[in-house]
Amino acid sequence: MNDLAARLHVAARMAHIAPFEVMEIQKLARQVEAQGHDVVRLEIGEPDFRTPAPVVEAAKKALDTHPMFYTSAMGLPELREAISGFYRDRYGVEVPASRIAVTAGSSGALLLAFGVLLDPGDGVLLADPGYPCNRHFMRALGAVPRPVAVGAETKYQLTADLARRHWDATTRMAMVASPSNPTGTLVEAKEMASLAALAREKGGTLLADEIYHGLTYGVDARTAAECGEDVIVINSFSKYFQMTGWRLGWLVVPPSLAREVETLAQNLFISPSAVAQHAALACFSPATLAIPEERRAELDARRRFLVPALESLGFGVPVVPQGAFYVYADCSRLTGDSFAFAREILARAHVAVTPGRDFGANAPERHIRIAYTQPVARLEEAIARIRRFLSER
Amino acid sequence: MNDLAARLHVAARMAHIAPFEVMEIQKLARQVEAQGHDVVRLEIGEPDFRTPAPVVEAAKKALDTHPMFYTSAMGLPELREAISGFYRDRYGVEVPASRIAVTAGSSGALLLAFGVLLDPGDGVLLADPGYPCNRHFMRALGAVPRPVAVGAETKYQLTADLARRHWDATTRMAMVASPSNPTGTLVEAKEMASLAALAREKGGTLLADEIYHGLTYGVDARTAAECGEDVIVINSFSKYFQMTGWRLGWLVVPPSLAREVETLAQNLFISPSAVAQHAALACFSPATLAIPEERRAELDARRRFLVPALESLGFGVPVVPQGAFYVYADCSRLTGDSFAFAREILARAHVAVTPGRDFGANAPERHIRIAYTQPVARLEEAIARIRRFLSER
Repeated sequence: MNDLAARLHVAARMAHIAPFEVMEIQKLARQVEAQGHDVVRLEIGEPDFRTPAPVVEAAKKALDTHPMFYTSAMGLPELREAISGFYRDRYGVEVPASRIAVTAGSSGALLLAFGVLLDPGDGVLLADPGYPCNRHFMRALGAVPRPVAVGAETKYQLTADLARRHWDATTRMAMVASPSNPTGTLVEAKEMASLAALAREKGGTLLADEIYHGLTYGVDARTAAECGEDVIVINSFSKYFQMTGWRLGWLVVPPSLAREVETLAQNLFISPSAVAQHAALACFSPATLAIPEERRAELDARRRFLVPALESLGFGVPVVPQGAFYVYADCSRLTGDSFAFAREILARAHVAVTPGRDFGANAPERHIRIAYTQPVARLEEAIARIRRFLSER
Repeated sequence: MNDLAARLHVAARMAHIAPFEVMEIQKLARQVEAQGHDVVRLEIGEPDFRTPAPVVEAAKKALDTHPMFYTSAMGLPELREAISGFYRDRYGVEVPASRIAVTAGSSGALLLAFGVLLDPGDGVLLADPGYPCNRHFMRALGAVPRPVAVGAETKYQLTADLARRHWDATTRMAMVASPSNPTGTLVEAKEMASLAALAREKGGTLLADEIYHGLTYGVDARTAAECGEDVIVINSFSKYFQMTGWRLGWLVVPPSLAREVETLAQNLFISPSAVAQHAALACFSPATLAIPEERRAELDARRRFLVPALESLGFGVPVVPQGAFYVYADCSRLTGDSFAFAREILARAHVAVTPGRDFGANAPERHIRIAYTQPVARLEEAIARIRRFLSER
């Protein structure tokens, strides 16, 4: 019967949609573990923290009291109000609930935003290195990612100047992530305003991915929502609220697009997870909010350990990350091939890290991403192992 | 600020993606309720049953014992095994776990299947009337739904003969839903095999939506998975297992496409809901399975009441539905405009039903869909109210 299936034609878009290298590393790491070795797992973008207890308890209570039916496509009205309140309390920005779409993770938010705004062939400017799914979402819809190589001189971020230089007749959107994955850098408020103004001038849209908001160190990020109602903002309960496996995020949409987003959401998702939404209602209480704030301090301690430790090994970290939980380290003094290097570190030092290849075409062979998703003691162990591995080469 | 957003360009695909009429009816029904009236709500495709208690308990237990991290993109291995076992036990068909992708509802399954198989411009044959999201998913990806008008003579289903007649150079897929929404009819096993053979002959794919499987009356449906490894099957925990708001479904994929589906799932979804997956692990125990079977008997009792009752009012039901929980009733003896008629019934009889418009372009003005998602006593009330309304016109 296999022959029957082998004849099936695969859509052309799949040629542009790559599997995650990080998943391959994860698979290899599990194999090394299965051989009886301890592996320090720093490959996946998911911290070791559990969902805050009040959120879990809210879910359990809702399971006892509510039938888990579909909610409206834009989400529970009370959750949309709570998110609106979060913008008011945390950022001092008015974002009415009518502009908030609750989504199946920020993944769902990206699909809705791109689906409503991008035609096949439309170009989107975005920083390279960057999160791989962004360009794959665009490809799924026939839109065309236009990576802009960025480096230390712009803190690995797209700027209004760069965007202006690369904006052409097919460009419809500029996308930024602040803090970014894999570099952990922020777009400053003034630059964000310039990007929003540029997109407006060009008749396009600025989309800001803020899913690592809250996880910033020594600085509180401002939201791109303050730059105008025409700016699209993506956020998530996954990272700051440690709800990765619940699959819940949100999208801030321009008032004029709310109806289109709702229509697409009805059709593509019917509704976000009711269980996750009831749980998330507990996120914004002071008791819950204290928990991610503690963890933010813990992540900062890890970061403060990790960056100098990597530098002491010979890695370069030209811009100290200010947010998220990644270091995008330049390994060019140690290797000419980060891909083979990551595999060697895994096989010989039993430390799992992600090679640059996942994040674009801008010198991926010179970079690896280390996620500080393990306690400092484990990071120390990882550094010691890599040090030994490097000295024995 | 509104002016800023109003200038935004909306993607062309949105012109093909309509809001659900049923959502509009739902909104109107809530308005009538808010005026203090009791409304019999028969518009939404969601029964009044809660998620089976063992499933809810499994979720609560998992929340106590498991961190709710991302799972692998294809789903928890033990859930994929359980679904594979379900095919063996219920249908006597071998579907290895490696061919099963756990998805964010059948919505997620549709997006993955269409995304991997359909290029922009590719045509898909499907029955009209049919579930509206199907054609909207295709449009989101630039593919082209090719509705085939069907009627009582084929039990409102696409047949191999019809598909052969409509298959042209751009056609890549035929899609069937068995039982179907809105007509509740089945594709018989022999016809399904003919459809699979035709798709194979034409170098295309057959996709079978089986999300209402289990909810069939006087007959147990066979699965299209028995027709060959090249047939794509969609299923869901929503309807038979009453888990609508959890957003969990699955996709049976040809072996040769499993890797492509995994890649697309990684990128578009990261992972299905971990909470929902842990809950769903409890679905296949005998104690749980007894619950949907009881409810199936209850739905059958509703169906047996509703069909003759509608006929006694002057509605036509040319093919008695054998599955799902819908009656697609011909109202042409009562009205020339089902759209206005549904609104009138709501406003004057306080019964909410869905006009044909949601389901395609094949005589929608002659049909309404009634969902028997309320107990018989409520259906009796609905019929009495409609009878009064009709007599007073």
